[in-house]
Amino acid sequence: MAGSLLSYLSPLYTDLYQLKMAQGYFLSGHHHQTAVFDLHYRTNPYKGGYVIACGIDEVLECLSQFRFEEEDIKYLETQGFQKSFLDHLKNFKFRMNIDSVEEGEVVFPKEPLLKTEGTLLECQLAETILINMVHFPSLIATKASRIVKAAEGRVVIDFGLRRAQGPAGLMASRAAFIGGVNGTSNVLAGKTYKIPIFGTQAHSWIQSYEDEEKAFLEFGRIYKKNITLLIDTYNTLKSGLPNLIKVAGKLREEGVEIAAVRLDSGDLAYLSKQVRKGLDKAGFPNIKIFASGSLDEYLIESLIKQKAIIDGFGVGTKLITSFDEPALDMVYKLGAINNNPNIKITDSVEKMNEPGNKKIIRYVNERGEFQLDAIALQNDKKVKEVMHPYYHYSKTLVKDMQHGELLKPVMKDGKVIQKRRSLNDIRSYAATRLNKLPEEHKRFYYPHTYRVGLSPRLFKAKEKLIAKSKK
Amino acid sequence: MAGSLLSYLSPLYTDLYQLKMAQGYFLSGHHHQTAVFDLHYRTNPYKGGYVIACGIDEVLECLSQFRFEEEDIKYLETQGFQKSFLDHLKNFKFRMNIDSVEEGEVVFPKEPLLKTEGTLLECQLAETILINMVHFPSLIATKASRIVKAAEGRVVIDFGLRRAQGPAGLMASRAAFIGGVNGTSNVLAGKTYKIPIFGTQAHSWIQSYEDEEKAFLEFGRIYKKNITLLIDTYNTLKSGLPNLIKVAGKLREEGVEIAAVRLDSGDLAYLSKQVRKGLDKAGFPNIKIFASGSLDEYLIESLIKQKAIIDGFGVGTKLITSFDEPALDMVYKLGAINNNPNIKITDSVEKMNEPGNKKIIRYVNERGEFQLDAIALQNDKKVKEVMHPYYHYSKTLVKDMQHGELLKPVMKDGKVIQKRRSLNDIRSYAATRLNKLPEEHKRFYYPHTYRVGLSPRLFKAKEKLIAKSKK
Repeated sequence: MAGSLLSYLSPLYTDLYQLKMAQGYFLSGHHHQTAVFDLHYRTNPYKGGYVIACGIDEVLECLSQFRFEEEDIKYLETQGFQKSFLDHLKNFKFRMNIDSVEEGEVVFPKEPLLKTEGTLLECQLAETILINMVHFPSLIATKASRIVKAAEGRVVIDFGLRRAQGPAGLMASRAAFIGGVNGTSNVLAGKTYKIPIFGTQAHSWIQSYEDEEKAFLEFGRIYKKNITLLIDTYNTLKSGLPNLIKVAGKLREEGVEIAAVRLDSGDLAYLSKQVRKGLDKAGFPNIKIFASGSLDEYLIESLIKQKAIIDGFGVGTKLITSFDEPALDMVYKLGAINNNPNIKITDSVEKMNEPGNKKIIRYVNERGEFQLDAIALQNDKKVKEVMHPYYHYSKTLVKDMQHGELLKPVMKDGKVIQKRRSLNDIRSYAATRLNKLPEEHKRFYYPHTYRVGLSPRLFKAKEKLIAKSKK
Repeated sequence: MAGSLLSYLSPLYTDLYQLKMAQGYFLSGHHHQTAVFDLHYRTNPYKGGYVIACGIDEVLECLSQFRFEEEDIKYLETQGFQKSFLDHLKNFKFRMNIDSVEEGEVVFPKEPLLKTEGTLLECQLAETILINMVHFPSLIATKASRIVKAAEGRVVIDFGLRRAQGPAGLMASRAAFIGGVNGTSNVLAGKTYKIPIFGTQAHSWIQSYEDEEKAFLEFGRIYKKNITLLIDTYNTLKSGLPNLIKVAGKLREEGVEIAAVRLDSGDLAYLSKQVRKGLDKAGFPNIKIFASGSLDEYLIESLIKQKAIIDGFGVGTKLITSFDEPALDMVYKLGAINNNPNIKITDSVEKMNEPGNKKIIRYVNERGEFQLDAIALQNDKKVKEVMHPYYHYSKTLVKDMQHGELLKPVMKDGKVIQKRRSLNDIRSYAATRLNKLPEEHKRFYYPHTYRVGLSPRLFKAKEKLIAKSKK
């Protein structure tokens, strides 16, 4: 079915080394060992202050339904995999447990936003698809939230499909909606995810008529409602605007009101003011001005600062590809094996993972605003203070603070157990959570770093592992 | 079927305005007008000198097979489309003619690399999918060709899947292979496109054992052939290398030779030299060194300049997302309607499209090297000189030069008529063509601009249209 990832991807949508390791674990009898892995990212994108976790519902659906088909097994046979392992794959399904933040949650670097617990073999096999299908939509939702913030309440529509990275456009439109845009031009995304769809006409409509006026009039007469006309095909102020005003007058006599004009080129600050003036003077104060063309959060912020009179923005390439940072440095790290906490020792402290089976505790103030997070051990009881991740003398007393845990069970024995929410619910959740993040973490330039620390027991466990490895 | 775009996408994978315009054309009786559109890009990515055209075979397959299903029609009904138009869509299929450059061709800004001829309605409906499915793989193939060039004959493997933009990873791996990489870690791409797949083990394999030596030994004993061992999990020189040498010795006694080591962190220039020295001294001059970690063409070029001793590169995020420029500014413009050439007049001469039904002529020297291209009218006969696109006094005599046309019929009445080639053939074609592009257009920094001019008749036709519009 169009729009279903399961029809396009398969458990072979993975790196070969995952299957090689899986076979290695299987042949050496290691595959039944239990493991805990966690998914986190290292650095906030766009030099920003947060990420909106996204893609979780879709990746859970894939994991719960992925099976190795006969043709997959045959292909792997041609690649030298052994029969006993392939027989194992024939009956393989993911049977693990997953805890995750709720889709739409605001998260920060190094926090495990999703955690898998199961056999070493299945946890390993889930790595590539988990990173692939969470890092990307998280990035797009985050980008969308920034663009929406810059627009200060004005409408923002995702116009990106044509410049999306091929088939990524569907997942991206979903994520952009979760991040806060009001709709999309992507019709398949509208159908698949029930996102409101928007769009009227392109320059080619105008060009297909002998003159602009006729092109406007015809479109108005056919559609009669929600008409947005593109007025920059020839010359916005000398041709588009006067023709638009003429046509708006004629249509008004026929009982039809034009809803908006669209500007897609030129100096949007200057043009929008001139167009607004012209429309108002001609008796069309209700015709709105919609702008598009190479927009992102920075340009929108600048346009508004210049007092551009724009009611809505169509944002394309910069949103749908996360143009200025098209990948999030998400990783998936082994936290524990056979219940023993595990750490990858490296020369750079920042890159070292937090060991063990973990959870996240978020501390809030009396207004519910996020204050700091602690990465804690799953079996941590009452956490009284939160340690800085490296400096043992820096800590925050939290024993009297309100708090909640962010990771909730979402998959049990390979079955999705969380209630499926509508996209609107996920979008609202993201907005609510982002609203609780203080402003200073959301500004575009040099945002204040949100504190994420460790529980004292996790801090000690990590120190012990490092000390042990030094021997 | 996994790997088939047709199972994931549908004709609804388009911008709403395409369908709105299509309905407009239909209801106003304009839809039978004939049109010619052409697909081109405006600026070379990466400040480079060329693009490898890619994605053409796949987009033709989609266009030839796309149908509006019952569920698509029902969805459009809910969006206010009218019954007569929806009835038209029920029986709709693309029946147009397409001329295109061969997939793998080297192309330049403003050249129509693909041209559609058909009814206004169908040509319009093809816009979004054409841009989406050609701009992205063209970008990735181009990026890959640069990385391969930087590697100067060393092996390059696409390791990008996990950080690909969600489901874009499959299309990207195909394009990277066309662009010249030797293989991929992406197993589904291997199965779908018969690309050689590569991969051995990750840090988690090493970490799942009590010690590194045992992890190496076990992997070697299980696989026996083509073994690459990752030696940077703990400390490359103090732990990874000595353990590797010990294990290589033991395995040699068992008749097993290690093929390569992989370095995935640290200073690759320094480490590779130390590791080479250590391996040679220990009697393993045949063990190769493979490197990965945030690589792109610039870093590879720099490593080689620093005399790093690396036999192969695994390139991930920077390749698979075209990180430094994740979209190509590709557009699809109306060239003619009812056989009348059409132009979109704008204030910026650079953005004006070339009018009419066009072709590309490529001029070569006696060694077959590309010298310049001319955009000409389809019915241009003998072109004697090529005009600069704007300056009428700048022209090049070409009447005695060898030349060939680049656009060939690939779709006729909606049916793909070109012979389907293997991916290896497309890849070889790209390499052959790139080889004919002189070096000065391929350097990374300030490449010389390849000349693309106009035939005198096209130049005149354009001037006439501009003059007409000024009246």
